[in-house]
Amino acid sequence: MKRTLGTCYYPEHWPEEIWEADARRMKDAGLTWVRIGEFAWSRLEPSPGDLQFDWLDRAIDTLGSAGLKVVLGTPTATPPRWVVDKYPDMIAIDASGQPRKFGSRRHYCFSHEGFRAESDRIVTLVVERYGRNPHVAAWQTDNEYGCHNTTISYSVAARDAFRVWLEQRYGTIGALNRAWGNVFWSMEYSTFAEINLPNLTVTEPNPSHALAFRRFSSDQVVSFNKRQVEIIRANSDAPISHNYMGRITDFDHFKVGDDLEIAAWDSYPLGFLEDRVGASAEHQRAYARQGDPDFQAFHHDLYRAVGKGRWWVMEQQPGPVSWAPYNPAPLPGMMRLWAWEAYAHGAEAVCYFRWRQAPFAQEQMHAGMLRPDNADAPALIEVRQVADELRAAPDVSVRQAPVALIFDYDADFAWATQPHGAGLSYFQLVFDAYKALRKLGLSIDILRPETRDFSGFKIVAAPGMITMPNDLKSSLAEYDAEVVLGPRTAARDADMVIPVPLPPDMPGLDVTVARVESLRPDMPMPLKGGGAFTGYREELESAVETLFELDTGEPAAVSSDHLTYVGGWCDDVAWRRLFEHLCAKADIPTLDLKDGVRCRDTEGTRIWINYGSKAAETPAGPIAAAGVLFEKL
Amino acid sequence: MKRTLGTCYYPEHWPEEIWEADARRMKDAGLTWVRIGEFAWSRLEPSPGDLQFDWLDRAIDTLGSAGLKVVLGTPTATPPRWVVDKYPDMIAIDASGQPRKFGSRRHYCFSHEGFRAESDRIVTLVVERYGRNPHVAAWQTDNEYGCHNTTISYSVAARDAFRVWLEQRYGTIGALNRAWGNVFWSMEYSTFAEINLPNLTVTEPNPSHALAFRRFSSDQVVSFNKRQVEIIRANSDAPISHNYMGRITDFDHFKVGDDLEIAAWDSYPLGFLEDRVGASAEHQRAYARQGDPDFQAFHHDLYRAVGKGRWWVMEQQPGPVSWAPYNPAPLPGMMRLWAWEAYAHGAEAVCYFRWRQAPFAQEQMHAGMLRPDNADAPALIEVRQVADELRAAPDVSVRQAPVALIFDYDADFAWATQPHGAGLSYFQLVFDAYKALRKLGLSIDILRPETRDFSGFKIVAAPGMITMPNDLKSSLAEYDAEVVLGPRTAARDADMVIPVPLPPDMPGLDVTVARVESLRPDMPMPLKGGGAFTGYREELESAVETLFELDTGEPAAVSSDHLTYVGGWCDDVAWRRLFEHLCAKADIPTLDLKDGVRCRDTEGTRIWINYGSKAAETPAGPIAAAGVLFEKL
Amino acid sequence: MKRTLGTCYYPEHWPEEIWEADARRMKDAGLTWVRIGEFAWSRLEPSPGDLQFDWLDRAIDTLGSAGLKVVLGTPTATPPRWVVDKYPDMIAIDASGQPRKFGSRRHYCFSHEGFRAESDRIVTLVVERYGRNPHVAAWQTDNEYGCHNTTISYSVAARDAFRVWLEQRYGTIGALNRAWGNVFWSMEYSTFAEINLPNLTVTEPNPSHALAFRRFSSDQVVSFNKRQVEIIRANSDAPISHNYMGRITDFDHFKVGDDLEIAAWDSYPLGFLEDRVGASAEHQRAYARQGDPDFQAFHHDLYRAVGKGRWWVMEQQPGPVSWAPYNPAPLPGMMRLWAWEAYAHGAEAVCYFRWRQAPFAQEQMHAGMLRPDNADAPALIEVRQVADELRAAPDVSVRQAPVALIFDYDADFAWATQPHGAGLSYFQLVFDAYKALRKLGLSIDILRPETRDFSGFKIVAAPGMITMPNDLKSSLAEYDAEVVLGPRTAARDADMVIPVPLPPDMPGLDVTVARVESLRPDMPMPLKGGGAFTGYREELESAVETLFELDTGEPAAVSSDHLTYVGGWCDDVAWRRLFEHLCAKADIPTLDLKDGVRCRDTEGTRIWINYGSKAAETPAGPIAAAGVLFEKL
Repeated sequence: MKRTLGTCYYPEHWPEEIWEADARRMKDAGLTWVRIGEFAWSRLEPSPGDLQFDWLDRAIDTLGSAGLKVVLGTPTATPPRWVVDKYPDMIAIDASGQPRKFGSRRHYCFSHEGFRAESDRIVTLVVERYGRNPHVAAWQTDNEYGCHNTTISYSVAARDAFRVWLEQRYGTIGALNRAWGNVFWSMEYSTFAEINLPNLTVTEPNPSHALAFRRFSSDQVVSFNKRQVEIIRANSDAPISHNYMGRITDFDHFKVGDDLEIAAWDSYPLGFLEDRVGASAEHQRAYARQGDPDFQAFHHDLYRAVGKGRWWVMEQQPGPVSWAPYNPAPLPGMMRLWAWEAYAHGAEAVCYFRWRQAPFAQEQMHAGMLRPDNADAPALIEVRQVADELRAAPDVSVRQAPVALIFDYDADFAWATQPHGAGLSYFQLVFDAYKALRKLGLSIDILRPETRDFSGFKIVAAPGMITMPNDLKSSLAEYDAEVVLGPRTAARDADMVIPVPLPPDMPGLDVTVARVESLRPDMPMPLKGGGAFTGYREELESAVETLFELDTGEPAAVSSDHLTYVGGWCDDVAWRRLFEHLCAKADIPTLDLKDGVRCRDTEGTRIWINYGSKAAETPAGPIAAAGVLFEKL
Repeated sequence: MKRTLGTCYYPEHWPEEIWEADARRMKDAGLTWVRIGEFAWSRLEPSPGDLQFDWLDRAIDTLGSAGLKVVLGTPTATPPRWVVDKYPDMIAIDASGQPRKFGSRRHYCFSHEGFRAESDRIVTLVVERYGRNPHVAAWQTDNEYGCHNTTISYSVAARDAFRVWLEQRYGTIGALNRAWGNVFWSMEYSTFAEINLPNLTVTEPNPSHALAFRRFSSDQVVSFNKRQVEIIRANSDAPISHNYMGRITDFDHFKVGDDLEIAAWDSYPLGFLEDRVGASAEHQRAYARQGDPDFQAFHHDLYRAVGKGRWWVMEQQPGPVSWAPYNPAPLPGMMRLWAWEAYAHGAEAVCYFRWRQAPFAQEQMHAGMLRPDNADAPALIEVRQVADELRAAPDVSVRQAPVALIFDYDADFAWATQPHGAGLSYFQLVFDAYKALRKLGLSIDILRPETRDFSGFKIVAAPGMITMPNDLKSSLAEYDAEVVLGPRTAARDADMVIPVPLPPDMPGLDVTVARVESLRPDMPMPLKGGGAFTGYREELESAVETLFELDTGEPAAVSSDHLTYVGGWCDDVAWRRLFEHLCAKADIPTLDLKDGVRCRDTEGTRIWINYGSKAAETPAGPIAAAGVLFEKL
Repeated sequence: MKRTLGTCYYPEHWPEEIWEADARRMKDAGLTWVRIGEFAWSRLEPSPGDLQFDWLDRAIDTLGSAGLKVVLGTPTATPPRWVVDKYPDMIAIDASGQPRKFGSRRHYCFSHEGFRAESDRIVTLVVERYGRNPHVAAWQTDNEYGCHNTTISYSVAARDAFRVWLEQRYGTIGALNRAWGNVFWSMEYSTFAEINLPNLTVTEPNPSHALAFRRFSSDQVVSFNKRQVEIIRANSDAPISHNYMGRITDFDHFKVGDDLEIAAWDSYPLGFLEDRVGASAEHQRAYARQGDPDFQAFHHDLYRAVGKGRWWVMEQQPGPVSWAPYNPAPLPGMMRLWAWEAYAHGAEAVCYFRWRQAPFAQEQMHAGMLRPDNADAPALIEVRQVADELRAAPDVSVRQAPVALIFDYDADFAWATQPHGAGLSYFQLVFDAYKALRKLGLSIDILRPETRDFSGFKIVAAPGMITMPNDLKSSLAEYDAEVVLGPRTAARDADMVIPVPLPPDMPGLDVTVARVESLRPDMPMPLKGGGAFTGYREELESAVETLFELDTGEPAAVSSDHLTYVGGWCDDVAWRRLFEHLCAKADIPTLDLKDGVRCRDTEGTRIWINYGSKAAETPAGPIAAAGVLFEKL
C-alpha cells in the first residue's frame, strides 16, 4: 500500500488571501491530506442558529482545487460560549466537585442530554452540507476524546445516567447489592435513585462501585461517538475516523473503534516523555529529543488493532510542543524517523500538526511546519524528504507478527480502581512486556480482549487481565501457542469480586494464587538466574513445572505444556528471560537490540530505526543517530 | 492472668448454612472471643423502623452454643443510606469545605444532633435485645473513632456546637477575646455567633482558635461515646470497650477510656509502617514484613493506661492488609510474635481481624485467618500454635515498670496547631523517647497527664508537654524520681498563650527558655560527647548544672537534683545518652539491644522478641528471626 | 543624609500603664520612628459607627511626647468581623473557588465596591483626626499588599470589575476576540458579560485571557491604594508610604509607588530563605542564620527605584520569625549587618518589627526587640550599637551605580502566565543576573521599565522583558551603553501574542529567535569556554558576531556594537562571563567576591558586609563573620 502524508490546517485562523498559497505549498511539499474544521464551531455558528458555512465552503474548495484531500472534523470538542450559556449544567464536574469551566476545550459532560442534542444538530448541519462534497475524503469525530482527563465527570447528568445504566445492567437493586457485596459496611441501597457517584467518600468507595462508574463513563464516550457516526454515515460515504490521544486509557478505544473505519492517534513523542511513558529521569534525559523508543510503536500497534487494520497518525509532533512540563526540540531526523516508523507499523497516513504555528492562544508555543512568520520550519524540510522517499519506495505492506499481546481497557479500569500497591498500573505492565519483546527484535500484533481466534501466532501474551472471562481462558487453553498469563489473571469476576475457586482457575494449568502482596518499589524480590519481581508478587500453589523461582525457593512462574503463569511484576531482565525462553520453545529467532535501536518487519522488508543520539550498529549495517535503514528480508 | 485469643466475624457476609462450621472451627483453633455486629446496621434495620434482629439472634446463639464468647459492636460507624437521606447535613465536611459522602464508612459528623438521636435509638434497640444475652460477654462502641481523619468536621452542626462549647468555656465574648488575644489583627468578636471554624482562613488562624476547635472536636467524640456507654450500661453488665486505631491522636483517648471498662486497639504492624511510624526508607525496607519493633509496644503500653490496666488487641493483622500504600505479607512467625508481645504488655485478649477474607467490597484484599475459598490461611496455623502455648504457659502478669512516660493528647493538639518547624509533632517526640528507652532493655509504663501519684517509678519522662499545668509541675518537683522535662514544657497556658514568667517556670529548677528556634532537619546541632539536636532547639538561661552542651558551648540540657530539662529535639544518640545517665543515677540496669531485638519484663519472666529477619543473640540465648524467648527472672 | 532607626508598636496589645516606659526605652535605644495603628480597626471602631479614637490619641501623644515620630497606618488590612458580616461577598475567592474566610488578615477582595467604601470611610476618619497631628510624621497605607497571595481574587466582584476593565481596554468584543485569538478553540465571546475569570478551565486558559486578568488584578491594587492616598493627602502633609513584602510580584509596585512619597519594604532575610530565594538545600543550610547574601540587596535596590530615591525598611526581622517552614535565630551581628546594608543602599530608616514579642495569636513565636517578659531580646543590644555608630558616622549618600538592571512587573505576569518550562520565572532570571553582577563587586541601580533616559550608566541589562515595547527598544538601541537583552525579549505583543517579524526585532541588532525550547533542569547545554544554559534556550538566526557558542557550535549569544542578545537561561558561570566581558568593554573594574562577602559603593565609601559564618578577606582588609567594614574610596 502507498503511504501518504498530510497536515492539520485552520483556515479560520488566517486571512483568506493566503489560503491558496498555503494549499499550493502543502501540495508542493508532497502532502495528500489536510484535516480541518474540528475547532471551528464558533465560526460556523457564532450565535444560535446563525449559520456561517460559506467560508468553509470556500476553504474546502481552495484546498480541494489544489489537489488535496480534506479530512473534515465535527466541531463538538469546542462548544461555543452560547452553548454553555444555554446549558450551564453541561459542564463536567471533577472528582473534587469543581466545575470544569468554559475557556479552553472539552468542557462538556458526555452524559448531558442537552449537549448531546446540540452535538446531533451541529453534526447534522455539517454533514448535510459536506457529506457529498468530492473534496471531503474522510471524517473525524470530535477531537481526542478523554484528553485532559475528560472521560469521567461527576456531574448531576452523569449521576442520573449512571443510575439508568446500573438499572439496565442489574435489573433489581437487590442484584446490585449482592453483586457488589454492599452488605459490607452497610452500603446497601433500596433503590437505584440512592446511588451516587463514587467520589468524595470518607475512605475508598466500594471497588465494584468505582469500576462500574468507570465502565459507565467509557460507555458514554462510545455512545456519544456512535451517534455522530450514525449521522455522518447517513449522509456520506467517506470513511470515519477519530484521533485518539496517547496513553488515554479511561474509555474503551476498541468499542469506539467498532463504529469507525479508521483509527487515528495523535503522536507527540517528546510531549509524552515526562508524564506518560513512566521512565526514569536518566531515560528521560537520554531520549528528551527523540521520545521513548517503544512508546510510539506500542500505540501504532494498538491503533492498528483498534482500526481493524486501518489506522493513521492524525497529528504528528513537528517540533517543540507547548504543553509538556519541558518542551525540547527534536533531534534532526526525527520527523523522518517517526514517519517511517509509523509506516513500518502500517500507518496509511501521517499528518503533521500543524501547518503554521499560531501566534495566539493556548498553543502559540506549539511548533508547526511553518513558523508564525511563514518561513519553513525544520519539520517541513524533513517532510519533503519523506515525501520523496515515499515516491521512490516500494509499497510497505503489513504482515502478521509472530507474537500477539492482548490489551484490555477493562483491565486498566480495574487496576486503576484497585492498584493494590501504590503506582501499579495495567498499562505500565503491558507496556513493560511490549518493550521486552521489542528489544528482542520481535514484531508484535496487539489484540483486543474479545479475540478468540489466534491463528498464526506463536506466542500470545495476556499479562494482567484481571477480569479475563472464562471463554477467553478456554480459547487460550485450547489454542496451540505459547500463552503467557499473570499476574492477576482472572483475579476478579465481572463485578470486581474475588472468584472462588481462587484465580486464575485456568483450564490446563494447575496453579492457584494463594495470597498476594505488594511491596515498596525499592524492595525487589530477586529471581534465581537473574531479574526480579518488583512491587507486586503472588504466592503460587502449583503442582506443575516451576519455570522461575524466587531466591527464597518459592515458585515465581509456572508452566504446563504451552501455558505459562507469571506470579509477579517482572523487571526488564525477567521479562526478557521469559520471552527468550518462549521464543526458543516456539522457534522464533530473537536479537539483542541495544539502546535506541529497534526494528519492525513488513512484507519483504525489515525497517530499522535508531532513537539513539549516536550512530549504532545493526545486523544490517550501521545506522545513523535518528536514522532509518531498510533491510530486505 | 490467663490470656485469650479471638477473631472478628461477619455472619451477615456469609450464608447461614456455614455459621456453625465456622464457629466450630474457631473453637477448635483455640479462640475464645468473636466480635460481631459493628457494621451491620443495614441488615438490622434495612429501612426506617423495619427491625430485622432474628438473624443476629441466630448468629449469637450459634456462636455461643459452640462455646465462644461474643463481643457485640454497636453499628453506628456505618449508618445506612436512609439515615443519611433523613439527615443530609449529618455528613462531615472536610477542611477544604467538601462533603465526606456516603459510600464507605464513618460518614457522620459527631456534632449532628439528628444523627446522635439515631445513634441513641439503634444502640438502645441493640442493647435492649442483647444486654442480658448470656453469650454477649463484652461490648464495643462504634468502630475506630477518628479513623480516616474523621474526628474533625467543618460542618454547620460542628460550627454551631462549637459556639455553644466556647460560650460554656469562656462565659463572655470579652473573656474569649482577651484569652485568645483577638486584638491582634482585629479578630475580636462581638458575640459567640460570630465565631466560625478555623478553616479556609487567608493565612493561619489564631492558634488559640485552632486549639480550641481541636479540643472541642475531641470532646464531641468523648460525649458521643459516653452516650452509648450510658445506654449500654443501663441494660447490660458486660464490660464495654472501644477499638482505638494506631496513631490516631486527634481526640483524647484517656477521656473516652474513662467511660470504658476495657481499652482495645487495632494493631496493623505492616499497615502502619509507611505512613504512621515516621521511619526512614531504609528502616521501612528492613521491617517491611515485621513492622516497626517499637510501634506496637508503644500502643500496648498506651492502651494499658487508657484501659486502667484492662486492654485488648481487638483487631490483629493476620496477613497482608488492603489499605496501606504497599501491602506485604508478614514473615512466618509474626502472628505468634505479635500475640506474645501483646501478652507481655498485659493484653487480656488478641483477636485477629478477620476470620475469613471477604471476596467483595473495600477490604477484599485484606487477609483473614481463612482464605476466601475457606482454606486455612497462614495466620490460622500460627494462631493454633499460640493457643497451644497459652494452654501450656504459666500466667503472664503485668508488673510495674521502673520508667514512666507521660502521654498527653492535649499536647499533641497544641503541637499540631503550632509545630513551629515543618514536620515536628508531639507524638514523634514521645515515641522517639520511648524507642530510646526500649533499646536500653527497659520496660515502660505510659501515664496519662492527670497522674499526680508517681509511686514506684524511678524515672518519669514528660517530654514536650507544652500545656503542662502548674499542679503537675509541683507533683513532679516534689516526687523523688528522676524527672525529664522539655522541650516546650509549659510553653503555653491553657489558652495557647506564652506565659510570663517565661517557660518552663519549674519549681526546683532554675532554667528559662529565652528564645526558641526551628531548623531544617538536615542541619543537626551536635552535642559535645555525641548526639545532636535536630529541627528544634531552645536557648536556655540557667544557673544550674549543664548536663549536655552544644558544640557551640551553649547549654543543651540542664539538671538540678532530680529534675532535668532538655532544650531541644534529641536524636537517637542524645536520647540514649540522657537515659543511660539517668538510669545510672537511679540505679536501673540497662542493656544495649541491637536491631529488632526487644524485651519486656512481666512478673517473673522477661519476654524476648526479635523483629529482625535474622536470628540474633540475647543475654538469655539465641533468638530466631521473628522469634519469641521466655527468660525466667 | 542621616539615617535613622525605628520600630513597630502595638499600643492596643499592652496595658496603657506601660506605654510611657516603652516610649522612653525606644528613645533610649536610639530609635526615631514608631509605626502604629495598621491592624487596630476593631479597637478604633468595635462596632459600626462606634468610634473609639481616644486611646489612639493618648498613644500618639505618649510616643510623640517621648520624642518619637509616629508612622500611622491605615487599618484596612484587617477589616473587623462586622465589616465582613455587612458585606459577606467582600471575601476573596481562591483559584479553586474556595472563600478565603475571616480569621486572620487580608480577607478582602480589592474589587468589592462595598469594602472600598468602608475603606474610604475608615481612612477618612483616621486622617481627619490625625492628619495635622504634629507627632504623625508619616503614613502607611494598608499593610503588605499581596501578602498571602491576596492580589488575585476569583470573586464575583472581581469578575464584574474585570469585564468593565476589559471593555475599557478593548472597546468592542470583536477587538478583544481578535487581540486574544479567541477563534482558537471557538473561545469567541459575543459580549463582555460572557467573559469569566480564567480559573478552573479544563486545560490551560488562553494566555491572553490569563495575562489580562493578572494586569487587571494589579490595577485593582493600584487604584485601591491611590484612593487611600488621595484621602490622606487631602488632610495631611506628611509623606505617605506603603510596606511592600519581599518577592511579591503579582501587582506592579512601581505603579503603586507612583502615588507614594516613600517606598518601604519588610525585610525578613531568614524567613524568605526557604520559599522565596530559589536556593539549593546546600545554600539554605549555609545561610540559614544570615539569609541569602543578595536577596535583601536586590529588594533594597528595587524599592529605591519604586520610591524614586526615598525608601525605608519598614519591618526588619529582629530574631526568629514564626511563619517560615523553619525559623532559626540569626547569627550574632546580623541586626547590625542588615541595617548597614540597608543604609548602604540608601535606606532612610530601618524599623524593627516588632517592639515586644506578643505572647498571643498568630505571631506569638515572632521575636521582638523585647521578649514577652519585657527583658531585652538580643536584637535590642545590636540596635543600640547601630544607633551609636549612626551618631558617630558621616552621612551615607547614594551615588549612581555604573550598572542598571530593568525590573518589569508586566514581564513577571507574562512569564507566570506562560513559563514554557516548569519552574521558570522572570523574577528568578533577573535575580540570577543581579547575583552575578554583585559577585563582581558591582553596585547596581534597578530601573523601572518606563525608563527611557539611561544617562550615566555604562551597562543596562534588561533580561527577560517578554513584552518590551518598541520605544524602549529604540531608546536602548540609541543610547551608548552596553545593553543586555534576551532571553524572550519582546517575544510577545501587548496582548500576549507572538509578533511578526519574529522577536526580538531589535533595531541595530540583526538577530531572530527562530525557535525556542525548554529542557529538564538536569540537562544543561554547555557553552564553549564555560558555563551553560539551563532549562530554556532559543535558536538564533543572526549575521552578527557570536559572543557565546554552545558546545554544538550553535550561537548562544550574539553581539553587535553595544547590543548583546543572550538566547537562553544562563547559569552562574555564564552570567559571570557575560558581565566580565561587558565590564571590560565598558571599562568598569570588577572584583571576584567569594561566598558571602559583598560590597556596595556610596559617595566616598565602599561598605563591605560578610554574610558568611566565618571571617573572610576583602581588598580592604579582614572582615568578621556577619561583619561590616567601611572602606574610604
